[in-house]
Amino acid sequence: MPPLSSEFALIKRYFQKPAPDGFLGVGDDCALMPVPPGRHLVTATDLLLENRHFLPDTRPFALGHKALAVNVSDLAAMGAVPLGCLLGLALPAVDEAWLQEFSAGFHAFAELAGCPLVGGDTTRSGQGIVISVTVMGHVDPALALRRDAARPGDDIWVTGQLGAPDIALALMQGRLPGNPALLEATRPFLETPIPPWKFAPLLCGVGHAALDISDGLAQDLGHILQASQCGAELHYKWLPVHPALASLPTDVQRHAVLAGGDVYQLCFTAAPGQRQHILEVAAAERIQVSRVGTITRQPGLRVLDADGVPIPLERTGFDHFREGS
Amino acid sequence: MPPLSSEFALIKRYFQKPAPDGFLGVGDDCALMPVPPGRHLVTATDLLLENRHFLPDTRPFALGHKALAVNVSDLAAMGAVPLGCLLGLALPAVDEAWLQEFSAGFHAFAELAGCPLVGGDTTRSGQGIVISVTVMGHVDPALALRRDAARPGDDIWVTGQLGAPDIALALMQGRLPGNPALLEATRPFLETPIPPWKFAPLLCGVGHAALDISDGLAQDLGHILQASQCGAELHYKWLPVHPALASLPTDVQRHAVLAGGDVYQLCFTAAPGQRQHILEVAAAERIQVSRVGTITRQPGLRVLDADGVPIPLERTGFDHFREGS
Repeated sequence: MPPLSSEFALIKRYFQKPAPDGFLGVGDDCALMPVPPGRHLVTATDLLLENRHFLPDTRPFALGHKALAVNVSDLAAMGAVPLGCLLGLALPAVDEAWLQEFSAGFHAFAELAGCPLVGGDTTRSGQGIVISVTVMGHVDPALALRRDAARPGDDIWVTGQLGAPDIALALMQGRLPGNPALLEATRPFLETPIPPWKFAPLLCGVGHAALDISDGLAQDLGHILQASQCGAELHYKWLPVHPALASLPTDVQRHAVLAGGDVYQLCFTAAPGQRQHILEVAAAERIQVSRVGTITRQPGLRVLDADGVPIPLERTGFDHFREGS
Repeated sequence: MPPLSSEFALIKRYFQKPAPDGFLGVGDDCALMPVPPGRHLVTATDLLLENRHFLPDTRPFALGHKALAVNVSDLAAMGAVPLGCLLGLALPAVDEAWLQEFSAGFHAFAELAGCPLVGGDTTRSGQGIVISVTVMGHVDPALALRRDAARPGDDIWVTGQLGAPDIALALMQGRLPGNPALLEATRPFLETPIPPWKFAPLLCGVGHAALDISDGLAQDLGHILQASQCGAELHYKWLPVHPALASLPTDVQRHAVLAGGDVYQLCFTAAPGQRQHILEVAAAERIQVSRVGTITRQPGLRVLDADGVPIPLERTGFDHFREGS
């Protein structure tokens, strides 16, 4: 391959793809895209920093996948349909092998989720790699899944399984003793999460509140409770614990399931009358859904063990500006 | 003020504003906003890194202003009307004085340009400050100003004045001998640029191609010529050189005017039949516009001096991944 002589050649080689019909993609000052009539624009952005959100030895393909997936997860949390995305990338140097892998992972998930890359910004970083992703989607504004829409009596549901990403991270960071089989089983959930991007829009008009589990179920559900001014009771035995965690000590499991972040599955609420419908839609989309508890008038979050005894919830989740985080 | 105990309090204190009617702003997984019927979404993103795009001693108010202004400039380059913006912010520590100033500058320009902050992401940075801004706007897709729309015979126009940001930067970096009066006159153009966000949409249906001058007139105009497969002839004496530059040596002036970046004014093309209309609209909006040359069939960019002799154009502009940049 000829050496890259400029930023523009670099952008073109790895990131420029033909834009979908009606779109204006990479190469102008801005990207243009249509928002379907009657739908509102839905948008979110995330910053990912080397050594903070990912380690220098993270496989670039997985990193490209995850950088987009965590943002598509935010769209899913509103019940929005993906429309397109922007990528800001600051790199210490032009490493073509890295770029090729990263862009392949990014584009692969973009294609899967129907969220094409339509524009962005690249620059040289004097420090580590910085990745900024912005996603755009669309939703019927009257039916968008919001954090403040939970109602007492609602069922609480979770998609997918809980705990695997946290265990993978603990194994990789040496916080748990080495266990190659467990790492093998849990690592894909940390590195290449697949949010329920296709199932989520089907919850519009069915579910009430929703969000994606990024900082841990307890902390994230807390945002719904705060915004909706209500409480919740969860039954631990109803939670979809990843089966690979079965041999771990109870306290390790519980921490991973209740406080483990990086899940990128949905937590949503819906009236009990929707149970059958939700199960049918999920089955048709091959999405695992679990009913895990109830929204209550009484404020606060209570997690009950198999005997109905509350599990003490220490300060959980991940708050980026807390001491030591 | 009480100490900030968490990221969420921090976000709320400095960045949460009441969302405009029909918007869902900061506080949910995504922001929601309507795009007017018949208009397309227009969007762009920029990454700004400490020590690369700004120095640690940059006034935080100016930084907040500029971080948004350079993105609104991209909207202007398409003729788009601003709709809202997202802010990603990675900080080494919670510095409340810095946050207060930065957010004040950001919100001040957001209010000026009608581009409210509707969402974002904050995180701790292990290195320097990282700022990522994404803007959304809307445009009639048939009338958007694109880089590939220049036609031979078009006039070439520039808004505002050229050269001041480059001279301010050269003075601050010691590349030019100290000159407090010159720094005073040029510094605001570097630190708090005001792109013609209100004038630009009025060019839809009037102008052909457009972009904003961020990397230097010669390099940026080159993008229009390449995308439109044509050339251009500029008359140096027609260029709107900032008057404060008058006492500088000719080569310093010419470099600042032709290759100096950070201008965030528009370069656009339009048929000669539009001259009177453009002058009238600009006068009504109190925007300085200068007709500076002509689009030609012959490829390449020629800049003629007062005697009609071509000025040699060394490699100009700012390419983030070039050696030494």
